[in-house]
Amino acid sequence: MKYNYLNNLPLDEAKSKYYEHLTDVGFSGKTETVPVTDACGRVIKNAAYAHICSPHYNASAMDGVAVKAEITFNASERTPVTLTPADYTVVDTGDPLPENADAVIMVEDLIENGEGCYEIISSVVPWQNVRQVGEDICMGDMIAPSGAVLTPSLCGALLAGGITEIEVIKKPLVGIIPTGDEIVPPTAEPGTGDIIEFNSTVFKGMLGEMNAAARVYPITPDKKDLIKAALEKALCECDIVLVSAGSSAGRDDYTSEIIASLGTVLVHGIAIKPGKPAVLGEALGKPVIGLPGYPVSAIVIMDEIVSDVVAMYYGKTKLPRETVKAVLAKKIVSSLKYSEYVRVSLGRINGKLSASPLARGAGVITSFTKADGVLIVPQNCEGIEAGEEIEVRLNKPLCEIENTLIVTGSHDPLIDEVADFLAKKGAPFRVCSTHVGSMGAIYTVRDGLAHMGGIHLLDTKTGIYNKSYVEKYLPEGKAVTVKGVGRIQGLMVQKGNPLKIKEFADIKNARYVNRQRGAGTRILCDYLLELNGLTPQDINGYHNEEFTHTAVAALIAAGNADAGLGIYSAAKMYDLDFIPICNETYEFLVDKNELENPMVKAFLEVLYSDEFHKRLSEMGGYV
Amino acid sequence: MKYNYLNNLPLDEAKSKYYEHLTDVGFSGKTETVPVTDACGRVIKNAAYAHICSPHYNASAMDGVAVKAEITFNASERTPVTLTPADYTVVDTGDPLPENADAVIMVEDLIENGEGCYEIISSVVPWQNVRQVGEDICMGDMIAPSGAVLTPSLCGALLAGGITEIEVIKKPLVGIIPTGDEIVPPTAEPGTGDIIEFNSTVFKGMLGEMNAAARVYPITPDKKDLIKAALEKALCECDIVLVSAGSSAGRDDYTSEIIASLGTVLVHGIAIKPGKPAVLGEALGKPVIGLPGYPVSAIVIMDEIVSDVVAMYYGKTKLPRETVKAVLAKKIVSSLKYSEYVRVSLGRINGKLSASPLARGAGVITSFTKADGVLIVPQNCEGIEAGEEIEVRLNKPLCEIENTLIVTGSHDPLIDEVADFLAKKGAPFRVCSTHVGSMGAIYTVRDGLAHMGGIHLLDTKTGIYNKSYVEKYLPEGKAVTVKGVGRIQGLMVQKGNPLKIKEFADIKNARYVNRQRGAGTRILCDYLLELNGLTPQDINGYHNEEFTHTAVAALIAAGNADAGLGIYSAAKMYDLDFIPICNETYEFLVDKNELENPMVKAFLEVLYSDEFHKRLSEMGGYV
Repeated sequence: MKYNYLNNLPLDEAKSKYYEHLTDVGFSGKTETVPVTDACGRVIKNAAYAHICSPHYNASAMDGVAVKAEITFNASERTPVTLTPADYTVVDTGDPLPENADAVIMVEDLIENGEGCYEIISSVVPWQNVRQVGEDICMGDMIAPSGAVLTPSLCGALLAGGITEIEVIKKPLVGIIPTGDEIVPPTAEPGTGDIIEFNSTVFKGMLGEMNAAARVYPITPDKKDLIKAALEKALCECDIVLVSAGSSAGRDDYTSEIIASLGTVLVHGIAIKPGKPAVLGEALGKPVIGLPGYPVSAIVIMDEIVSDVVAMYYGKTKLPRETVKAVLAKKIVSSLKYSEYVRVSLGRINGKLSASPLARGAGVITSFTKADGVLIVPQNCEGIEAGEEIEVRLNKPLCEIENTLIVTGSHDPLIDEVADFLAKKGAPFRVCSTHVGSMGAIYTVRDGLAHMGGIHLLDTKTGIYNKSYVEKYLPEGKAVTVKGVGRIQGLMVQKGNPLKIKEFADIKNARYVNRQRGAGTRILCDYLLELNGLTPQDINGYHNEEFTHTAVAALIAAGNADAGLGIYSAAKMYDLDFIPICNETYEFLVDKNELENPMVKAFLEVLYSDEFHKRLSEMGGYV
Repeated sequence: MKYNYLNNLPLDEAKSKYYEHLTDVGFSGKTETVPVTDACGRVIKNAAYAHICSPHYNASAMDGVAVKAEITFNASERTPVTLTPADYTVVDTGDPLPENADAVIMVEDLIENGEGCYEIISSVVPWQNVRQVGEDICMGDMIAPSGAVLTPSLCGALLAGGITEIEVIKKPLVGIIPTGDEIVPPTAEPGTGDIIEFNSTVFKGMLGEMNAAARVYPITPDKKDLIKAALEKALCECDIVLVSAGSSAGRDDYTSEIIASLGTVLVHGIAIKPGKPAVLGEALGKPVIGLPGYPVSAIVIMDEIVSDVVAMYYGKTKLPRETVKAVLAKKIVSSLKYSEYVRVSLGRINGKLSASPLARGAGVITSFTKADGVLIVPQNCEGIEAGEEIEVRLNKPLCEIENTLIVTGSHDPLIDEVADFLAKKGAPFRVCSTHVGSMGAIYTVRDGLAHMGGIHLLDTKTGIYNKSYVEKYLPEGKAVTVKGVGRIQGLMVQKGNPLKIKEFADIKNARYVNRQRGAGTRILCDYLLELNGLTPQDINGYHNEEFTHTAVAALIAAGNADAGLGIYSAAKMYDLDFIPICNETYEFLVDKNELENPMVKAFLEVLYSDEFHKRLSEMGGYV
């Protein structure tokens, strides 16, 4: 087995090296002429100058009568002026002024006087109530400079200026070649080892947001000649080509070699994480980019490099992204080898914007679905402490982030269900839930990182849930506990219970899967161990930690473990056997200053509704 | 002539009255099922739950060898462990773990030992370098709640969760019926009285931004039965119908009456300006909205009402728009009859964000093309003073606004030309120029409302341009004057000079069109009057004020006036005769703190370039 090390070029150097080469080979967009009526969103090639004035004639700005202003000059309440039919022409808004008229009297100011005559008691000056030629646009004025993106109102202005067709940059066509022996098209029933090819759908969506079209080619197996042939075809048909996966230096990674055989590889390996194993190349004057196989890595390269390349095609430089200052909720450790892209969720609690780092694995697509922004930790930085002010590059409009209810704490699927009920009602906010365990709820609410959090913390001395923990860990008056649900905790075991597990003590003979430290369920586990005279060393898998009930259930269902503590609804979802152990009190801790927050109130209103309780009984295990 | 007064319902009341009615009649979107690979940007009907886990098998996270972790437990530098071919299986990233293996050793950590054996000097723990089942997504987890807009990464997560098809809300089809006898399709050569129908293009573009499709129907003349027939057809084919124009209460305004004959009119007349004469109705359970004919009025209704209606169709409530605090640059007077929507341009100068009101006429589409945001002056407010802090609803991302060079002052087409040169070079900023005259440049630069401004102010005592004005009006050190261009001022007169105007004094026998107070050209005019022993009373049209050289030229070309002062390039553009009067010094005043601003530097660099001087000589009149 061979292993080739990649370059580790800093991103800025990689970009300038690549973009200079693309400029040198003359990479830029072709143009086409389109009707302005269909040009919204397009990028114009050259500055657009008005062909005609708008209005292009002197137009009445009102419904009324057009007159020569000078005949009205002496009109007053004392000396009204009478207009005879010869003095005026009836005009509606937009009508051209007749020859010799230079003003309009509004219909509201006319007093009927019989025989088609009107009396007026105030004068008009020349050009009053008239939209003179060129009021809006003058012939020859530049309506939009080169490279302008046509907004709806710019299209209107172009048409008003007599421009009916316009030369725009053709939308770039970006070819996407998914490669890999193990890759299969999307399916609900993949076989073991099949990797569902969803990256091309993500890329296609991102390209749409960049104003580019995508052509997704069939999946090509890891055969050098087949990938080369696919790339040659795509190079003929497209303006930019992306080769998905095979961009690293493993035994089946051919992307770099194939691009080099057809053109030039400028960069192979960038000092960013995720995203390192990217290939930046060019062939036939067109950019060819090898994207990493891990979706998160690939998304970072799409966002950093491909969007720049599309902007270059359009002859534009990308504007700096919108950023926001926030307080980091949790310490981050970062490598000096890379500049690291950490996805964060954002929330405003008690007026303060905080950023919570999301899962950092390159394979975790959900870290992007939940990300409100990205924190870039520079290469020369070993980490950032919790509480430091940081700058976050936004993925979403700030107004969406501001209208987000942050629910942390113990995992329970009911939180997502409440969010769904709220969405169905058209609530003008979103719910963002992260699973940090019950102790996490206490810390995040204490530190102003969450509006509320779910807790189920058993005081093993009293058998009472939550109260003593809240008293111990939270300054008085900081937060209150509100009613949640009762739920059944127990041991989830494989269907049919092959190991004949009857009570908690039996897990010493099984492979166990545990919850993370700070989770209420972990505290329950430790309590049950003590009660049964067991220690962590007695349990095979005690250190195998998961963050949610469903993750524990999934591992048991997959056979990675035999047993784990969790709630009934998770066992039911995975068709596992369930050995009930206790009923627990799952409550919500709410920041006291946020009790009147309409988002918090709406959340609790749903939670307490009869309608929602019906949903809970469908899910099962709530009491 | 009859005049029917409209209602004047406050916007909030109009909205709730209308939306409650639409809810009562059950207005909401239909659904369709689409492949997830094509679902980016769509709105899902119901919450989406993962069908399968992702990964759905235990997958190697690295290239390396899969082993049973326990055989490695004692490996160290002192006690290396040797793996024989029976101990391991070679795996690539993404490969499934073979039966019995529960960890992966990275290829980098293997030391070849001959005969297919490897030595290792550190151990792996169970599940190390393995992406366990459900690491990213667990079967049964909610991937997105009802009503979620599918982002690229959400589509990826759905596919990863085994969801290949999804029920989404059908894109609403919005019918647009342009009406009016005088309306003509877009053309470069409209006849007198023809109004170019560009509103439907603006609406179509705005609907696209709201995630709705548009069907534009042929122009229907102002005939009650024809409009009714067109509306009936559109009601059959579309989900929402917009009738463009005819929404007021004039003699040809039938929209309200026709909607009432087919359904219900809830509101006719809203207390907002522009936008008052809107009709909010319903027929066959579908919203029918009568839009005002003036483009700016119609855009306000599209933005305020139609976007809400589209959101209702999708079952969503619009989030509050993004706003920003800014300092108002110029006093605004507003009516107590309406809540007023004032378009503003925004710019950051010396760190401070200022908002400059744009033209307020309802017919001025260019006020929307230039608008960075909207200031809503409440109905109960008579106006806002310059310098007050206001809240602006943004039309554009703030990062675009932050990267804008604000150039004010005297109008010269060369400013737009420099902007175009910069755009062609791909400069990462825009230029926003507003024409406030040379004195306006002095005030706006003084007050921190512009980075720079063009000035040509003649000191009639010394014959020297600009210097004495800058000394008089600007505190020392506030701004500096930098080189601009020399240009020829003169009298523009109609082609062939029918009035035989030879020198400035001859304008006393002509209809004159003047520039606004504070314009350098106005100061020149007043100086020339004095020089020739004339007074404003001697000049017919002295009070007819325009803001640009091209606007003056346009009025002379249209025959609204016979003569006006202006620069040669404007006369040339309109094919007018030109009587040169003087060469003047057109310079730029630059805020001293902004001299090193890269945008200012890039602007001046273009201005002074040989390439740009070629362009100036094409335009003519620059010396």
